[in-house]
Amino acid sequence: MPTDVDEFLRRPNPAVVASLRRDGSPHTVATWYDWEPGRILVNMDENRLRLRFMRYDPRVALTVLDTEDWYRHASLLGRIVSLEEDEALRDIDRLALRYTGERFRRRDRRRFSAWIRVDAWHAWDGSHPWLGGE
Amino acid sequence: MPTDVDEFLRRPNPAVVASLRRDGSPHTVATWYDWEPGRILVNMDENRLRLRFMRYDPRVALTVLDTEDWYRHASLLGRIVSLEEDEALRDIDRLALRYTGERFRRRDRRRFSAWIRVDAWHAWDGSHPWLGGE
Repeated sequence: MPTDVDEFLRRPNPAVVASLRRDGSPHTVATWYDWEPGRILVNMDENRLRLRFMRYDPRVALTVLDTEDWYRHASLLGRIVSLEEDEALRDIDRLALRYTGERFRRRDRRRFSAWIRVDAWHAWDGSHPWLGGE
Repeated sequence: MPTDVDEFLRRPNPAVVASLRRDGSPHTVATWYDWEPGRILVNMDENRLRLRFMRYDPRVALTVLDTEDWYRHASLLGRIVSLEEDEALRDIDRLALRYTGERFRRRDRRRFSAWIRVDAWHAWDGSHPWLGGE
């Protein structure tokens, strides 16, 4: 992956994650995420529908938008390789700090973390593929 | 649908559309859209992968983000009910005018319009369901 796409993904950008409903149709929702080369962290309240969807079918996609020009975006395809309870709310705090600068406020609910292994990606800058800086 | 969700969808917001690849896994990409009550217009260059995906499986999802606070969003689930060539580029002009105030610049390529019939939706305002104004 080119350096500038990697740097883009490191920023706290808006993102939308798609998972698959039990009937195989897509489901999308806005999400916080964090990026480490090759893998993505997302985190969900125990009641979120997509937590059930991800347990049933681990295939997901994530599109990350640029806050300056949202049509510049990167899309990542992959698979959940770990889906575990966020016992001490460490992961949601990591995401909340990244996006808001503060720890996550609500501490009375169970949450779950999913790590997505990225199998493919593409990046797009307006009407052109975004070829990156290398 | 509550009036304020309808009004939100009428604005030229950032959006991400999910379609299904041939193997059933989700594919997501940023998109322009237009909204009429109960249906969504999207438009694609003839070379876009999702055009092929939508022909093979019409099930799609769209998440629309608020430009002010992107975690406020609406997600729509539905099905492509019409997928036809945008012969005179009328639909892409409609979208370009909505988002940029100008007609679509590139006129030398074939484009296709998809109308999505909305079967279900949910809207979310930060950590709470967005219950709307009615």
